[in-house]
Amino acid sequence: MNQAIPTSADAWLSWGQHFLKTQPFSALIGAQITGLDRGRSELSLPLSPQLLQQHGFAHGGVVSYLADNALTFAGGTALGGDALTLEFKINYVRPAVGEMLIARAHAEATGKTQAVCRCNVYAVKDGEEKLCAVAQGTIVPVPAK
Amino acid sequence: MNQAIPTSADAWLSWGQHFLKTQPFSALIGAQITGLDRGRSELSLPLSPQLLQQHGFAHGGVVSYLADNALTFAGGTALGGDALTLEFKINYVRPAVGEMLIARAHAEATGKTQAVCRCNVYAVKDGEEKLCAVAQGTIVPVPAK
Amino acid sequence: MNQAIPTSADAWLSWGQHFLKTQPFSALIGAQITGLDRGRSELSLPLSPQLLQQHGFAHGGVVSYLADNALTFAGGTALGGDALTLEFKINYVRPAVGEMLIARAHAEATGKTQAVCRCNVYAVKDGEEKLCAVAQGTIVPVPAK
Amino acid sequence: MNQAIPTSADAWLSWGQHFLKTQPFSALIGAQITGLDRGRSELSLPLSPQLLQQHGFAHGGVVSYLADNALTFAGGTALGGDALTLEFKINYVRPAVGEMLIARAHAEATGKTQAVCRCNVYAVKDGEEKLCAVAQGTIVPVPAK
Repeated sequence: MNQAIPTSADAWLSWGQHFLKTQPFSALIGAQITGLDRGRSELSLPLSPQLLQQHGFAHGGVVSYLADNALTFAGGTALGGDALTLEFKINYVRPAVGEMLIARAHAEATGKTQAVCRCNVYAVKDGEEKLCAVAQGTIVPVPAK
Repeated sequence: MNQAIPTSADAWLSWGQHFLKTQPFSALIGAQITGLDRGRSELSLPLSPQLLQQHGFAHGGVVSYLADNALTFAGGTALGGDALTLEFKINYVRPAVGEMLIARAHAEATGKTQAVCRCNVYAVKDGEEKLCAVAQGTIVPVPAK
Repeated sequence: MNQAIPTSADAWLSWGQHFLKTQPFSALIGAQITGLDRGRSELSLPLSPQLLQQHGFAHGGVVSYLADNALTFAGGTALGGDALTLEFKINYVRPAVGEMLIARAHAEATGKTQAVCRCNVYAVKDGEEKLCAVAQGTIVPVPAK
Repeated sequence: MNQAIPTSADAWLSWGQHFLKTQPFSALIGAQITGLDRGRSELSLPLSPQLLQQHGFAHGGVVSYLADNALTFAGGTALGGDALTLEFKINYVRPAVGEMLIARAHAEATGKTQAVCRCNVYAVKDGEEKLCAVAQGTIVPVPAK
Protein backbone atom coordinates (compact mmCIF):
# COMPACT_ATOMS: atom_id res chain seq x y z
CA MET A 1 0.00 0.00 0.00
CA ASN A 2 1.12 3.53 -0.53
CA GLN A 3 1.63 5.83 2.38
CA ALA A 4 -1.46 7.83 1.55
CA ILE A 5 -4.38 5.90 2.99
CA PRO A 6 -7.59 6.19 0.95
CA THR A 7 -10.34 7.98 2.81
CA SER A 8 -13.41 6.98 0.79
CA ALA A 9 -14.88 3.75 -0.56
CA ASP A 10 -14.29 5.00 -4.12
CA ALA A 11 -10.64 5.71 -3.38
CA TRP A 12 -10.21 2.33 -1.69
CA LEU A 13 -11.78 0.61 -4.69
CA SER A 14 -9.46 2.37 -7.15
CA TRP A 15 -6.50 1.56 -4.96
CA GLY A 16 -7.52 -2.10 -4.72
CA GLN A 17 -8.13 -2.47 -8.43
CA HIS A 18 -4.71 -1.03 -9.16
CA PHE A 19 -3.16 -3.28 -6.53
CA LEU A 20 -4.74 -6.46 -7.87
CA LYS A 21 -3.38 -5.73 -11.35
CA THR A 22 0.15 -5.87 -9.96
CA GLN A 23 -0.35 -9.54 -9.08
CA PRO A 24 0.38 -11.76 -12.10
CA PHE A 25 -1.46 -14.70 -10.55
CA SER A 26 -4.61 -12.67 -9.94
CA ALA A 27 -4.47 -11.50 -13.57
CA LEU A 28 -3.98 -15.08 -14.77
CA ILE A 29 -7.06 -16.21 -12.90
CA GLY A 30 -9.09 -13.12 -13.74
CA ALA A 31 -10.08 -11.92 -10.27
CA GLN A 32 -11.68 -8.50 -9.89
CA ILE A 33 -12.26 -6.26 -6.90
CA THR A 34 -15.88 -5.22 -6.98
CA GLY A 35 -16.09 -3.61 -3.57
CA LEU A 36 -13.64 -2.19 -1.07
CA ASP A 37 -13.86 -0.01 1.99
CA ARG A 38 -12.26 0.22 5.42
CA GLY A 39 -12.43 -3.33 6.78
CA ARG A 40 -14.56 -4.72 3.95
CA SER A 41 -13.86 -6.28 0.57
CA GLU A 42 -15.65 -8.02 -2.28
CA LEU A 43 -13.83 -9.95 -4.99
CA SER A 44 -15.46 -11.49 -8.04
CA LEU A 45 -14.17 -14.16 -10.37
CA PRO A 46 -15.82 -15.29 -13.62
CA LEU A 47 -15.59 -19.09 -13.75
CA SER A 48 -13.81 -19.82 -17.02
CA PRO A 49 -13.35 -23.53 -17.91
CA GLN A 50 -9.69 -23.50 -16.92
CA LEU A 51 -10.63 -22.78 -13.29
CA LEU A 52 -12.55 -26.02 -12.84
CA GLN A 53 -11.64 -29.44 -11.53
CA GLN A 54 -12.58 -32.80 -13.00
CA HIS A 55 -16.23 -32.70 -11.90
CA GLY A 56 -16.94 -29.32 -13.51
CA PHE A 57 -16.87 -27.39 -10.21
CA ALA A 58 -14.52 -24.55 -9.44
CA HIS A 59 -11.32 -26.08 -8.14
CA GLY A 60 -10.93 -25.80 -4.38
CA GLY A 61 -7.68 -23.93 -4.97
CA VAL A 62 -9.61 -21.26 -6.87
CA VAL A 63 -12.13 -20.88 -4.08
CA SER A 64 -9.43 -20.70 -1.42
CA TYR A 65 -7.40 -18.23 -3.52
CA LEU A 66 -10.41 -15.91 -3.65
CA ALA A 67 -11.13 -16.27 0.06
CA ASP A 68 -7.48 -15.69 0.97
CA ASN A 69 -7.28 -12.57 -1.18
CA ALA A 70 -10.57 -11.16 0.09
CA LEU A 71 -9.40 -11.72 3.66
CA THR A 72 -6.16 -9.88 2.92
CA PHE A 73 -7.97 -6.88 1.44
CA ALA A 74 -10.47 -6.69 4.29
CA GLY A 75 -7.65 -6.88 6.83
CA GLY A 76 -5.33 -4.56 4.93
CA THR A 77 -7.92 -1.82 4.67
CA ALA A 78 -8.81 -2.30 8.35
CA LEU A 79 -5.16 -2.00 9.36
CA GLY A 80 -4.70 0.91 6.99
CA GLY A 81 -1.65 -0.32 5.15
CA ASP A 82 0.06 -3.05 3.19
CA ALA A 83 -0.83 -6.41 4.71
CA LEU A 84 -0.53 -10.12 4.25
CA THR A 85 -2.35 -13.24 5.35
CA LEU A 86 -0.54 -14.89 8.24
CA GLU A 87 -2.85 -17.90 8.26
CA PHE A 88 -6.38 -18.83 7.37
CA LYS A 89 -8.85 -21.66 7.52
CA ILE A 90 -11.56 -22.53 5.04
CA ASN A 91 -14.55 -24.87 5.09
CA TYR A 92 -15.98 -25.93 1.75
CA VAL A 93 -19.71 -26.32 2.21
CA ARG A 94 -21.07 -26.86 -1.31
CA PRO A 95 -19.62 -27.54 -4.78
CA ALA A 96 -18.91 -24.20 -6.47
CA VAL A 97 -21.04 -24.43 -9.59
CA GLY A 98 -22.02 -21.49 -11.75
CA GLU A 99 -20.78 -18.64 -13.84
CA MET A 100 -19.07 -16.63 -11.12
CA LEU A 101 -17.63 -16.66 -7.63
CA ILE A 102 -18.05 -13.77 -5.21
CA ALA A 103 -16.04 -13.52 -1.99
CA ARG A 104 -17.11 -11.06 0.69
CA ALA A 105 -14.87 -10.48 3.68
CA HIS A 106 -14.82 -8.18 6.67
CA ALA A 107 -12.60 -7.54 9.65
CA GLU A 108 -14.25 -8.94 12.76
CA ALA A 109 -11.58 -7.72 15.19
CA THR A 110 -8.93 -5.13 14.38
CA GLY A 111 -5.96 -4.33 16.61
CA LYS A 112 -2.59 -2.72 16.06
CA THR A 113 -0.79 -5.89 15.08
CA GLN A 114 -3.50 -8.00 13.45
CA ALA A 115 -6.98 -8.07 11.99
CA VAL A 116 -9.00 -11.25 12.36
CA CYS A 117 -11.26 -11.46 9.33
CA ARG A 118 -14.11 -13.59 8.08
CA CYS A 119 -15.10 -14.39 4.53
CA ASN A 120 -17.98 -16.09 2.73
CA VAL A 121 -17.58 -17.30 -0.85
CA TYR A 122 -20.68 -17.59 -3.01
CA ALA A 123 -21.16 -19.30 -6.35
CA VAL A 124 -23.52 -17.43 -8.65
CA LYS A 125 -25.62 -19.56 -10.99
CA ASP A 126 -28.40 -18.11 -13.09
CA GLY A 127 -28.15 -15.00 -10.96
CA GLU A 128 -28.65 -16.81 -7.69
CA GLU A 129 -25.94 -16.79 -5.01
CA LYS A 130 -25.24 -19.94 -3.02
CA LEU A 131 -22.79 -20.09 -0.16
CA CYS A 132 -19.98 -22.48 -1.03
CA ALA A 133 -17.17 -21.70 1.44
CA VAL A 134 -16.69 -20.14 4.87
CA ALA A 135 -13.29 -18.82 5.95
CA GLN A 136 -11.50 -17.10 8.82
CA GLY A 137 -7.97 -15.75 8.92
CA THR A 138 -5.36 -13.53 10.50
CA ILE A 139 -4.07 -10.54 8.56
CA VAL A 140 -0.93 -8.70 9.69
CA PRO A 141 0.77 -5.52 8.52
CA VAL A 142 3.73 -5.98 6.20
CA PRO A 143 6.82 -5.13 8.26
CA ALA A 144 8.34 -1.78 7.29
CA LYS A 145 11.72 -2.18 5.58
CA MET B 1 -10.91 -42.78 -8.17
CA ASN B 2 -11.67 -45.96 -9.99
CA GLN B 3 -12.94 -48.97 -8.17
CA ALA B 4 -9.63 -50.77 -8.51
CA ILE B 5 -7.43 -49.42 -5.74
CA PRO B 6 -3.73 -49.27 -6.64
CA THR B 7 -1.64 -51.65 -4.60
CA SER B 8 1.86 -50.25 -5.17
CA ALA B 9 3.52 -46.84 -5.03
CA ASP B 10 4.13 -47.00 -8.78
CA ALA B 11 0.49 -47.73 -9.45
CA TRP B 12 -0.61 -44.95 -7.12
CA LEU B 13 1.73 -42.52 -8.87
CA SER B 14 0.39 -43.41 -12.32
CA TRP B 15 -3.14 -43.11 -11.04
CA GLY B 16 -2.42 -39.73 -9.46
CA GLN B 17 -0.69 -38.34 -12.53
CA HIS B 18 -3.64 -39.35 -14.67
CA PHE B 19 -6.03 -37.88 -12.13
CA LEU B 20 -4.27 -34.51 -11.96
CA LYS B 21 -4.44 -34.16 -15.76
CA THR B 22 -8.22 -34.26 -15.57
CA GLN B 23 -8.20 -31.01 -13.56
CA PRO B 24 -8.05 -28.01 -15.92
CA PHE B 25 -6.92 -25.71 -13.11
CA SER B 26 -4.03 -27.96 -12.12
CA ALA B 27 -2.97 -28.06 -15.79
CA LEU B 28 -3.22 -24.27 -16.03
CA ILE B 29 -0.94 -23.86 -13.03
CA GLY B 30 1.40 -26.67 -14.04
CA ALA B 31 1.31 -28.85 -10.91
CA GLN B 32 2.85 -32.32 -11.03
CA ILE B 33 2.56 -35.32 -8.77
CA THR B 34 6.07 -36.45 -7.98
CA GLY B 35 5.27 -38.99 -5.30
CA LEU B 36 2.22 -40.93 -4.19
CA ASP B 37 1.56 -43.91 -1.97
CA ARG B 38 -1.03 -45.01 0.55
CA GLY B 39 -1.46 -42.00 2.86
CA ARG B 40 1.39 -39.97 1.35
CA SER B 41 1.72 -37.49 -1.49
CA GLU B 42 4.22 -35.10 -3.01
CA LEU B 43 3.25 -32.40 -5.48
CA SER B 44 5.70 -30.14 -7.31
CA LEU B 45 5.09 -26.87 -9.06
CA PRO B 46 7.61 -24.93 -11.17
CA LEU B 47 7.26 -21.24 -10.28
CA SER B 48 6.58 -19.53 -13.59
CA PRO B 49 6.25 -15.71 -13.49
CA GLN B 50 2.47 -15.86 -13.78
CA LEU B 51 2.25 -17.61 -10.39
CA LEU B 52 3.76 -14.71 -8.47
CA GLN B 53 2.32 -11.74 -6.60
CA GLN B 54 3.53 -8.17 -6.68
CA HIS B 55 6.66 -8.74 -4.58
CA GLY B 56 8.00 -11.58 -6.76
CA PHE B 57 6.99 -14.35 -4.35
CA ALA B 58 4.66 -17.18 -5.18
CA HIS B 59 1.13 -15.92 -4.59
CA GLY B 60 -0.41 -17.23 -1.37
CA GLY B 61 -3.21 -18.71 -3.45
CA VAL B 62 -0.66 -20.81 -5.32
CA VAL B 63 0.86 -22.09 -2.10
CA SER B 64 -2.52 -22.91 -0.60
CA TYR B 65 -3.68 -24.56 -3.84
CA LEU B 66 -0.69 -26.89 -3.68
CA ALA B 67 -1.18 -27.64 0.02
CA ASP B 68 -4.90 -28.29 -0.46
CA ASN B 69 -4.26 -30.66 -3.36
CA ALA B 70 -1.48 -32.52 -1.58
CA LEU B 71 -3.75 -32.94 1.45
CA THR B 72 -6.50 -34.35 -0.76
CA PHE B 73 -4.17 -36.87 -2.39
CA ALA B 74 -2.70 -37.98 0.94
CA GLY B 75 -6.17 -38.39 2.40
CA GLY B 76 -7.66 -39.96 -0.72
CA THR B 77 -5.00 -42.63 -0.90
CA ALA B 78 -5.35 -43.25 2.84
CA LEU B 79 -9.11 -43.65 2.53
CA GLY B 80 -8.67 -45.75 -0.59
CA GLY B 81 -11.04 -43.92 -2.89
CA ASP B 82 -12.15 -40.65 -4.44
CA ALA B 83 -11.95 -37.93 -1.84
CA LEU B 84 -12.26 -34.21 -1.28
CA THR B 85 -11.04 -31.62 1.17
CA LEU B 86 -13.76 -30.77 3.69
CA GLU B 87 -11.70 -28.02 5.30
CA PHE B 88 -8.12 -27.05 5.85
CA LYS B 89 -5.96 -24.48 7.59
CA ILE B 90 -2.65 -23.07 6.43
CA ASN B 91 0.06 -20.98 8.08
CA TYR B 92 2.41 -19.08 5.82
CA VAL B 93 5.79 -19.00 7.52
CA ARG B 94 8.17 -17.56 4.90
CA PRO B 95 7.87 -15.87 1.49
CA ALA B 96 7.88 -18.56 -1.20
CA VAL B 97 10.88 -17.55 -3.29
CA GLY B 98 12.63 -19.80 -5.78
CA GLU B 99 12.24 -21.90 -8.86
CA MET B 100 9.86 -24.52 -7.51
CA LEU B 101 7.38 -25.40 -4.79
CA ILE B 102 7.16 -28.87 -3.29
CA ALA B 103 4.26 -29.93 -1.06
CA ARG B 104 4.53 -33.10 1.00
CA ALA B 105 1.49 -34.40 2.85
CA HIS B 106 0.61 -37.44 4.89
CA ALA B 107 -2.42 -38.80 6.69
CA GLU B 108 -1.91 -38.40 10.44
CA ALA B 109 -5.15 -40.13 11.45
CA THR B 110 -7.29 -42.25 9.14
CA GLY B 111 -10.76 -43.52 10.00
CA LYS B 112 -13.71 -44.73 7.96
CA THR B 113 -15.24 -41.34 7.40
CA GLN B 114 -12.26 -38.99 7.39
CA ALA B 115 -8.52 -38.68 7.19
CA VAL B 116 -6.87 -35.83 9.06
CA CYS B 117 -3.77 -34.88 7.09
CA ARG B 118 -0.77 -32.63 7.47
CA CYS B 119 1.25 -30.90 4.80
CA ASN B 120 4.45 -28.90 4.55
CA VAL B 121 5.16 -26.70 1.53
CA TYR B 122 8.77 -25.95 0.63
CA ALA B 123 10.20 -23.39 -1.76
CA VAL B 124 13.26 -24.65 -3.64
CA LYS B 125 15.87 -22.05 -4.49
CA ASP B 126 19.26 -22.97 -5.93
CA GLY B 127 18.49 -26.54 -4.97
CA GLU B 128 17.83 -25.75 -1.31
CA GLU B 129 14.44 -26.41 0.26
CA LYS B 130 13.00 -23.93 2.73
CA LEU B 131 9.75 -24.47 4.59
CA CYS B 132 7.24 -21.80 3.59
CA ALA B 133 3.86 -23.11 4.72
CA VAL B 134 2.38 -25.55 7.23
CA ALA B 135 -1.13 -26.97 6.76
CA GLN B 136 -3.65 -29.34 8.30
CA GLY B 137 -6.95 -30.49 6.90
CA THR B 138 -9.83 -32.95 6.88
CA ILE B 139 -10.29 -35.20 3.86
CA VAL B 140 -13.54 -37.13 3.37
CA PRO B 141 -14.62 -39.76 0.86
CA VAL B 142 -16.72 -38.54 -2.04
CA PRO B 143 -20.26 -39.81 -1.39
CA ALA B 144 -21.24 -42.66 -3.72
CA LYS B 145 -23.91 -41.61 -6.20
CA MET C 1 -30.39 -35.40 22.10
CA ASN C 2 -33.67 -37.13 22.54
CA GLN C 3 -35.65 -38.22 19.55
CA ALA C 4 -38.23 -35.53 20.09
CA ILE C 5 -36.79 -32.37 18.57
CA PRO C 6 -37.77 -29.18 20.40
CA THR C 7 -39.95 -26.89 18.33
CA SER C 8 -39.64 -23.61 20.23
CA ALA C 9 -36.82 -21.52 21.64
CA ASP C 10 -38.11 -22.18 25.17
CA ALA C 11 -38.10 -25.91 24.57
CA TRP C 12 -34.61 -25.76 23.08
CA LEU C 13 -33.37 -23.79 26.06
CA SER C 14 -34.80 -26.29 28.55
CA TRP C 15 -33.34 -29.13 26.55
CA GLY C 16 -29.92 -27.45 26.41
CA GLN C 17 -29.85 -26.63 30.10
CA HIS C 18 -30.67 -30.22 30.94
CA PHE C 19 -28.06 -31.43 28.49
CA LEU C 20 -25.29 -29.25 29.89
CA LYS C 21 -25.93 -30.57 33.40
CA THR C 22 -25.06 -34.06 32.20
CA GLN C 23 -21.49 -32.93 31.44
CA PRO C 24 -19.35 -33.11 34.59
CA PHE C 25 -16.71 -30.81 33.07
CA SER C 26 -19.26 -28.12 32.22
CA ALA C 27 -20.58 -28.34 35.79
CA LEU C 28 -17.04 -28.10 37.17
CA ILE C 29 -16.39 -24.93 35.20
CA GLY C 30 -19.84 -23.48 35.81
CA ALA C 31 -21.02 -22.86 32.25
CA GLN C 32 -24.65 -21.96 31.64
CA ILE C 33 -26.80 -21.92 28.53
CA THR C 34 -28.49 -18.56 28.38
CA GLY C 35 -29.94 -18.80 24.89
CA LEU C 36 -30.74 -21.59 22.46
CA ASP C 37 -32.77 -21.91 19.31
CA ARG C 38 -32.51 -23.66 15.97
CA GLY C 39 -28.98 -22.90 14.75
CA ARG C 40 -28.17 -20.42 17.52
CA SER C 41 -26.69 -20.67 20.99
CA GLU C 42 -25.45 -18.47 23.82
CA LEU C 43 -23.36 -19.79 26.68
CA SER C 44 -22.31 -17.76 29.71
CA LEU C 45 -19.58 -18.43 32.22
CA PRO C 46 -18.92 -16.47 35.43
CA LEU C 47 -15.16 -15.98 35.75
CA SER C 48 -14.28 -17.46 39.12
CA PRO C 49 -10.60 -17.18 40.18
CA GLN C 50 -9.92 -20.82 39.38
CA LEU C 51 -10.60 -20.18 35.68
CA LEU C 52 -7.75 -17.73 35.28
CA GLN C 53 -4.15 -18.04 34.16
CA GLN C 54 -1.11 -16.43 35.73
CA HIS C 55 -1.83 -12.89 34.44
CA GLY C 56 -5.36 -12.76 35.86
CA PHE C 57 -7.07 -13.31 32.50
CA ALA C 58 -9.39 -16.19 31.72
CA HIS C 59 -7.22 -19.11 30.66
CA GLY C 60 -7.22 -19.71 26.91
CA GLY C 61 -8.49 -23.20 27.57
CA VAL C 62 -11.57 -21.74 29.26
CA VAL C 63 -12.26 -19.45 26.33
CA SER C 64 -11.82 -22.25 23.81
CA TYR C 65 -13.96 -24.61 25.91
CA LEU C 66 -16.80 -22.09 25.79
CA ALA C 67 -16.39 -21.48 22.05
CA ASP C 68 -16.26 -25.20 21.31
CA ASN C 69 -19.39 -25.90 23.34
CA ALA C 70 -21.31 -22.97 21.84
CA LEU C 71 -20.37 -24.18 18.35
CA THR C 72 -21.61 -27.67 19.18
CA PHE C 73 -24.95 -26.37 20.45
CA ALA C 74 -25.46 -24.09 17.46
CA GLY C 75 -24.63 -26.92 15.07
CA GLY C 76 -26.56 -29.55 16.99
CA THR C 77 -29.74 -27.52 17.01
CA ALA C 78 -29.25 -26.70 13.32
CA LEU C 79 -28.82 -30.38 12.47
CA GLY C 80 -31.71 -31.29 14.75
CA GLY C 81 -30.04 -33.96 16.81
CA ASP C 82 -27.14 -35.04 18.96
CA ALA C 83 -23.95 -33.62 17.53
CA LEU C 84 -20.26 -33.20 18.17
CA THR C 85 -17.48 -30.88 17.10
CA LEU C 86 -15.37 -32.48 14.38
CA GLU C 87 -12.86 -29.65 14.37
CA PHE C 88 -12.66 -25.97 15.11
CA LYS C 89 -10.32 -23.03 14.95
CA ILE C 90 -10.08 -20.10 17.33
CA ASN C 91 -8.32 -16.73 17.23
CA TYR C 92 -7.71 -14.99 20.54
CA VAL C 93 -7.99 -11.28 19.91
CA ARG C 94 -7.90 -9.69 23.38
CA PRO C 95 -7.15 -10.82 26.94
CA ALA C 96 -10.38 -12.08 28.51
CA VAL C 97 -10.72 -9.81 31.52
CA GLY C 98 -13.88 -9.31 33.51
CA GLU C 99 -16.57 -10.97 35.55
CA MET C 100 -18.11 -13.14 32.84
CA LEU C 101 -17.60 -14.70 29.42
CA ILE C 102 -20.40 -14.92 26.86
CA ALA C 103 -20.11 -17.07 23.75
CA ARG C 104 -22.59 -16.61 20.90
CA ALA C 105 -22.59 -19.03 18.01
CA HIS C 106 -24.69 -19.63 14.93
CA ALA C 107 -24.75 -22.07 12.05
CA GLU C 108 -23.53 -20.31 8.92
CA ALA C 109 -24.09 -23.26 6.57
CA THR C 110 -26.18 -26.31 7.41
CA GLY C 111 -26.32 -29.47 5.31
CA LYS C 112 -27.30 -33.06 5.96
CA THR C 113 -23.91 -34.19 7.16
CA GLN C 114 -22.43 -31.07 8.75
CA ALA C 115 -23.08 -27.58 10.03
CA VAL C 116 -20.31 -25.02 9.68
CA CYS C 117 -20.68 -22.64 12.60
CA ARG C 118 -19.17 -19.39 13.78
CA CYS C 119 -18.76 -18.11 17.31
CA ASN C 120 -17.70 -14.91 19.04
CA VAL C 121 -16.62 -14.92 22.67
CA TYR C 122 -17.02 -11.73 24.69
CA ALA C 123 -15.61 -10.78 28.08
CA VAL C 124 -18.00 -8.73 30.17
CA LYS C 125 -16.40 -6.18 32.48
CA ASP C 126 -18.44 -3.62 34.38
CA GLY C 127 -21.34 -4.54 32.14
CA GLU C 128 -19.49 -3.86 28.90
CA GLU C 129 -18.88 -6.62 26.37
CA LYS C 130 -15.55 -6.81 24.57
CA LEU C 131 -14.81 -9.32 21.84
CA CYS C 132 -11.98 -11.60 22.96
CA ALA C 133 -12.10 -14.59 20.60
CA VAL C 134 -13.37 -15.51 17.14
CA ALA C 135 -13.99 -19.13 16.18
CA GLN C 136 -15.21 -21.33 13.33
CA GLY C 137 -15.86 -25.05 13.36
CA THR C 138 -17.49 -28.09 11.82
CA ILE C 139 -20.29 -29.84 13.70
CA VAL C 140 -21.45 -33.29 12.65
CA PRO C 141 -24.33 -35.51 13.78
CA VAL C 142 -23.46 -38.25 16.25
CA PRO C 143 -23.65 -41.50 14.29
CA ALA C 144 -26.69 -43.59 15.20
CA LYS C 145 -25.74 -46.74 17.08
CA MET D 1 9.21 -16.42 31.48
CA ASN D 2 12.12 -15.05 33.37
CA GLN D 3 14.90 -13.25 31.61
CA ALA D 4 17.29 -16.13 32.14
CA ILE D 5 16.52 -18.65 29.43
CA PRO D 6 17.00 -22.26 30.51
CA THR D 7 19.84 -23.98 28.69
CA SER D 8 19.08 -27.64 29.39
CA ALA D 9 16.07 -29.93 29.18
CA ASP D 10 16.14 -30.34 32.96
CA ALA D 11 16.14 -26.60 33.48
CA TRP D 12 13.32 -26.13 30.97
CA LEU D 13 11.29 -28.82 32.73
CA SER D 14 11.74 -27.20 36.13
CA TRP D 15 10.86 -23.86 34.66
CA GLY D 16 7.75 -25.25 33.00
CA GLN D 17 6.55 -27.08 36.09
CA HIS D 18 6.90 -23.90 38.11
CA PHE D 19 5.12 -21.93 35.40
CA LEU D 20 2.17 -24.29 35.18
CA LYS D 21 1.60 -24.05 38.93
CA THR D 22 1.00 -20.32 38.56
CA GLN D 23 -2.09 -21.02 36.42
CA PRO D 24 -5.12 -21.63 38.66
CA PHE D 25 -7.03 -23.29 35.80
CA SER D 26 -4.23 -25.74 35.07
CA ALA D 27 -4.13 -26.62 38.77
CA LEU D 28 -7.91 -27.06 38.83
CA ILE D 29 -7.74 -29.50 35.96
CA GLY D 30 -4.60 -31.22 37.19
CA ALA D 31 -2.31 -30.86 34.16
CA GLN D 32 1.35 -31.74 34.51
CA ILE D 33 4.38 -30.97 32.36
CA THR D 34 6.18 -34.25 31.83
CA GLY D 35 8.65 -33.11 29.19
CA LEU D 36 10.05 -29.79 28.02
CA ASP D 37 12.95 -28.70 25.90
CA ARG D 38 13.69 -26.05 23.28
CA GLY D 39 10.78 -26.29 20.84
CA ARG D 40 9.24 -29.40 22.41
CA SER D 41 6.73 -30.07 25.14
CA GLU D 42 4.77 -32.90 26.70
CA LEU D 43 1.81 -32.36 29.00
CA SER D 44 -0.05 -35.11 30.85
CA LEU D 45 -3.46 -35.04 32.43
CA PRO D 46 -5.02 -37.79 34.58
CA LEU D 47 -8.65 -38.17 33.53
CA SER D 48 -10.62 -37.67 36.72
CA PRO D 49 -14.43 -38.06 36.44
CA GLN D 50 -15.00 -34.32 36.54
CA LEU D 51 -13.16 -33.91 33.22
CA LEU D 52 -15.61 -36.01 31.26
CA GLN D 53 -18.69 -35.23 29.19
CA GLN D 54 -21.98 -37.07 29.17
CA HIS D 55 -20.73 -40.11 27.26
CA GLY D 56 -17.82 -40.80 29.62
CA PHE D 57 -15.17 -39.41 27.28
CA ALA D 58 -12.85 -36.57 28.12
CA HIS D 59 -14.71 -33.37 27.30
CA GLY D 60 -13.54 -31.74 24.06
CA GLY D 61 -12.72 -28.64 26.06
CA VAL D 62 -10.28 -30.65 28.16
CA VAL D 63 -8.58 -32.05 25.08
CA SER D 64 -8.34 -28.65 23.44
CA TYR D 65 -7.07 -27.07 26.68
CA LEU D 66 -4.23 -29.58 26.77
CA ALA D 67 -3.41 -29.11 23.09
CA ASP D 68 -3.48 -25.32 23.41
CA ASN D 69 -1.18 -25.38 26.44
CA ALA D 70 1.25 -27.85 24.87
CA LEU D 71 1.41 -25.66 21.76
CA THR D 72 2.15 -22.62 23.88
CA PHE D 73 4.99 -24.36 25.73
CA ALA D 74 6.52 -25.74 22.53
CA GLY D 75 6.37 -22.32 20.90
CA GLY D 76 7.46 -20.42 24.00
CA THR D 77 10.57 -22.53 24.46
CA ALA D 78 11.30 -22.24 20.71
CA LEU D 79 10.99 -18.46 20.87
CA GLY D 80 12.98 -18.35 24.09
CA GLY D 81 10.62 -16.29 26.19
CA ASP D 82 7.15 -15.74 27.52
CA ALA D 83 4.64 -16.56 24.81
CA LEU D 84 0.95 -16.95 24.09
CA THR D 85 -1.25 -18.75 21.59
CA LEU D 86 -2.45 -16.34 18.91
CA GLU D 87 -4.70 -18.95 17.30
CA PHE D 88 -4.97 -22.67 16.88
CA LYS D 89 -7.00 -25.34 15.17
CA ILE D 90 -7.83 -28.80 16.42
CA ASN D 91 -9.30 -31.92 14.81
CA TYR D 92 -10.85 -34.48 17.12
CA VAL D 93 -10.21 -37.89 15.59
CA ARG D 94 -11.33 -40.38 18.25
CA PRO D 95 -13.21 -40.26 21.57
CA ALA D 96 -10.71 -39.65 24.37
CA VAL D 97 -11.24 -42.68 26.56
CA GLY D 98 -8.84 -43.87 29.22
CA GLU D 99 -7.02 -42.99 32.38
CA MET D 100 -4.82 -40.22 31.03
CA LEU D 101 -4.27 -37.73 28.23
CA ILE D 102 -0.83 -36.94 26.85
CA ALA D 103 -0.21 -33.98 24.54
CA ARG D 104 3.05 -33.75 22.62
CA ALA D 105 3.86 -30.61 20.69
CA HIS D 106 6.80 -29.26 18.73
CA ALA D 107 7.66 -26.11 16.83
CA GLU D 108 7.55 -26.85 13.11
CA ALA D 109 8.70 -23.40 12.01
CA THR D 110 10.29 -20.80 14.28
CA GLY D 111 10.93 -17.19 13.30
CA LYS D 112 11.47 -13.98 15.22
CA THR D 113 7.84 -13.08 15.55
CA GLN D 114 6.08 -16.43 15.63
CA ALA D 115 6.46 -20.17 16.02
CA VAL D 116 4.06 -22.40 14.11
CA CYS D 117 3.59 -25.53 16.20
CA ARG D 118 1.94 -28.92 15.89
CA CYS D 119 0.48 -31.10 18.59
CA ASN D 120 -0.91 -34.62 18.91
CA VAL D 121 -3.07 -35.58 21.86
CA TYR D 122 -3.20 -39.22 22.92
CA ALA D 123 -5.56 -41.00 25.26
CA VAL D 124 -3.87 -43.68 27.33
CA LYS D 125 -6.00 -46.70 28.20
CA ASP D 126 -4.55 -49.78 29.86
CA GLY D 127 -1.14 -48.41 29.02
CA GLU D 128 -1.83 -48.08 25.29
CA GLU D 129 -1.73 -44.67 23.59
CA LYS D 130 -4.31 -43.83 20.96
CA LEU D 131 -4.27 -40.62 18.96
CA CYS D 132 -7.41 -38.62 19.72
CA ALA D 133 -6.68 -35.10 18.46
CA VAL D 134 -4.43 -33.30 15.99
CA ALA D 135 -3.71 -29.58 16.34
CA GLN D 136 -1.77 -26.73 14.76
CA GLY D 137 -1.31 -23.21 16.05
CA THR D 138 0.55 -19.94 16.02
CA ILE D 139 2.54 -18.92 19.10
CA VAL D 140 3.81 -15.37 19.51
CA PRO D 141 6.07 -13.70 22.07
CA VAL D 142 4.34 -11.74 24.80
CA PRO D 143 4.96 -8.05 24.04
CA ALA D 144 7.46 -6.49 26.43
CA LYS D 145 5.83 -3.96 28.76
